Amino acid sequence: MKDTELAEKTLSCERVWEGRVFDVECRRVLLPNGDTVRRDVVMHKGAVCVIALTENHCVLVERQWRSGYDGVTLEIPAGKLDFVGEDPLSAAQRELREETGAVAQRWIDLGEYYGSPAILSEKIHMYMAEELSFGDTDYDDDEIMQVERIPLSDLAGRVLRGEIPDGKTQCAVLRAALMCGVTPEK
Amino acid sequence: MKDTELAEKTLSCERVWEGRVFDVECRRVLLPNGDTVRRDVVMHKGAVCVIALTENHCVLVERQWRSGYDGVTLEIPAGKLDFVGEDPLSAAQRELREETGAVAQRWIDLGEYYGSPAILSEKIHMYMAEELSFGDTDYDDDEIMQVERIPLSDLAGRVLRGEIPDGKTQCAVLRAALMCGVTPEK
Repeated sequence: MKDTELAEKTLSCERVWEGRVFDVECRRVLLPNGDTVRRDVVMHKGAVCVIALTENHCVLVERQWRSGYDGVTLEIPAGKLDFVGEDPLSAAQRELREETGAVAQRWIDLGEYYGSPAILSEKIHMYMAEELSFGDTDYDDDEIMQVERIPLSDLAGRVLRGEIPDGKTQCAVLRAALMCGVTPEK
Repeated sequence: MKDTELAEKTLSCERVWEGRVFDVECRRVLLPNGDTVRRDVVMHKGAVCVIALTENHCVLVERQWRSGYDGVTLEIPAGKLDFVGEDPLSAAQRELREETGAVAQRWIDLGEYYGSPAILSEKIHMYMAEELSFGDTDYDDDEIMQVERIPLSDLAGRVLRGEIPDGKTQCAVLRAALMCGVTPEK
C-alpha cells in the first residue's frame, strides 16, 4: 500500500476549544475505505529540546513538576516555540540559556519527535549541544526547576531500567549514548 | 531542592472539554513560590505499545495515517487501554494480536513513556515481545494500516538519522538495539 492509499482526507474541521498552550480541533475525515469518522486533535505550536553534554559526558537535566505527569520529572531542557514558524535552533539556544545558563558552540540536529502523533500535533525539534560555557539563567515566571548534571552512562542506565518517564529525554539520552559510544550503566 | 519543594498544588480543577479519546482540564495551581497560575491538561486514559522482535531481529511496524502528525508514520503496534486501570500487559497482548496477528511467548516490561508530560496525561506502557507465532489480524473499524517487518539494525539507523517521527517508536527501537547488542546501520 502506498502512503496515498493510507491517507485520511479532512472533510470539515472545527476549533472546539481554545487554551493558552494548545487548542482542540474536531475533524470529520474520510477514510481510505470510504467511511467517515471523527478525529479529535490537540493543536500545539511546537517545541524544542536539547541534550547538552559537558566535556566529561555529563548531561544537563532539570527536575520540575509536570501537570500531565502529576509529579516531578527529570528532563532535558525544553520549551515551546514563541510563535508558529520560529526557527527551532534559535528557540533551542534560547531555552538552553534561559533554563541552564549554558551557551553551546556546537549544535547537532537530531530531527523531530512527535510524543503522541495520533492525537497531538506538537512537533518537538531535538538538538544535541556541546562545547558549553556557562552564564546566568533567566526563568519564566511560572518555571520552578532544579538543574543537575548527571553522567550520560548513569542516565542511559536509568532509561533502560524504565526510571525516566519523559519520552523525549528517553530518546535523546539513548541517541547520545549510541552516538558517543557510551555504555549504559547496569 | 526536594521533590516536595517543586510540587504544584491543585486549588481547583474544571473539565472544560470532553471528547471521545481525551478530555481537557483547566486547573488553578499554587506554585512553590506562592504564585497561582493556570495549567491546561489533556486527560487520556492511557495506552500501551509493543516492540515485537522476530527470531532474526526484525521489528513488526505499521504504516498508518496519524491525525496529529497529519501524515503517514511508521510505528510499533500500540493502542489505548479499554478502560482506566486495565492491566497493561493484557492490553499489549490484545493490541499486538489484533494489529499484527502475532502472539508472543516472552514479554519484557520496558516501563512507562509520557510523550508530553507537561500537558498530556497519557501514560504509554511499553513492552518488548519475543518468540512470536502468527494468526489472524482483527482491526478496529477506523484502523487502516500496513504491517511490515524491518530489521532492527535498519530501523535503529533510521531513528539515529531522524527519519522516524514517532517518539515511542524511537525509544523502543533504541532500547531494543542496546538490549540486543544490535549496531544501528549507518
